[in-house]
Amino acid sequence: MKLNFILLDSALELVPKEILNDPSVIKNAERRGKKPQDTILDISLHYHAMRKLKDWQKRGRPDIVHMAMIMILSEKEILGDFYIHTYDSRIIKVEKDLNPPKNYNRFIGLMEQLLKFGQIPPNSSRPLMKILNVKLSDIAKKYKPVLLSEDGNKIDPTYLCNENFLLGIGAFQHGDFSEEVKGIFTERYSISKRALETQQVVCRIISSCNYLLGWP
Amino acid sequence: MKLNFILLDSALELVPKEILNDPSVIKNAERRGKKPQDTILDISLHYHAMRKLKDWQKRGRPDIVHMAMIMILSEKEILGDFYIHTYDSRIIKVEKDLNPPKNYNRFIGLMEQLLKFGQIPPNSSRPLMKILNVKLSDIAKKYKPVLLSEDGNKIDPTYLCNENFLLGIGAFQHGDFSEEVKGIFTERYSISKRALETQQVVCRIISSCNYLLGWP
Repeated sequence: MKLNFILLDSALELVPKEILNDPSVIKNAERRGKKPQDTILDISLHYHAMRKLKDWQKRGRPDIVHMAMIMILSEKEILGDFYIHTYDSRIIKVEKDLNPPKNYNRFIGLMEQLLKFGQIPPNSSRPLMKILNVKLSDIAKKYKPVLLSEDGNKIDPTYLCNENFLLGIGAFQHGDFSEEVKGIFTERYSISKRALETQQVVCRIISSCNYLLGWP
Repeated sequence: MKLNFILLDSALELVPKEILNDPSVIKNAERRGKKPQDTILDISLHYHAMRKLKDWQKRGRPDIVHMAMIMILSEKEILGDFYIHTYDSRIIKVEKDLNPPKNYNRFIGLMEQLLKFGQIPPNSSRPLMKILNVKLSDIAKKYKPVLLSEDGNKIDPTYLCNENFLLGIGAFQHGDFSEEVKGIFTERYSISKRALETQQVVCRIISSCNYLLGWP
């Protein structure tokens, strides 16, 4: 059994042009020896500037993506395909061989490289991460897309241990899924009475499938 | 059912005096406007200096503690007592009400404050984290100490869903548990055929107990 995951509407993007001239953006980029347009949007650094942005409460949370990636990629035996869909509708294919840096600042550097050059490593013929030139709908049609959502039908998480499913999990803090996601992921399931954080959803699903496998 | 956790030999400490004069330590402290002795040891910043330190491969990994804390403190309903035992044998009591910063750099700032002032917030009569003036043996005798270890007896993780247990989980990267830990945590259990990372151990235990509770 292999699980296919996609992180949805992930709060991962380079600083958008609307706020490239904000002092907090320029200062942080200078301190790191980078151009502002090559740095990742991070609400812990760019809070005041971000409040001008559309959907600002859904954006600038690369730490959510980081934790989910660590949880997913530390269970390689049970992992099938893994994608990241971002707030700005990019699709990143993540290979199982990737061991993401545990250190957040190194992770940020890696993702900045990915978003700038389109793949990691930049010149490899077998990249560990790559931005695909496809839409979410192209990816989803290869599987049965299933959305994890607080308002979905309550199920036992072992129901999700199905290799035909593409398990869609939101990787943003506040607000609803985008219209793009809602149009494609029409089946919604909930695995808890409470709202769970992204890494909790990943943990519960992987653990329930590991339980079925006798805890490998 | 409430689970009691203790992170053991945790790779969390301020920069030790042996390397306070190292250029990498001074430069990083200056960049953050702090004194070198008030900054946390971090192998991603202090790698070369750390190689002079005893047990260097076990130290300087606050990111491991960070991820384990987020996993544990996001499941407050199932959480009993929570402690962090550090490489240098401090005991930190963590209250359930704490919501640790998800952002790593903010977490580091918070833990630096804790290690400098002994509690968080520094002047509160009801601190959310506090360094206790006790030894590991004092804490452990209030419970039945149980160690999660690759070489322990293989069990189903649901066996660990017991409020009398103090579940000890290593929070360091390489090497063996300290003599202090091994002398106190004499019962060892394993919940996987493979070596697991700290956050995986936490995830599997909490999930297996949530399974018993019908996935609250």
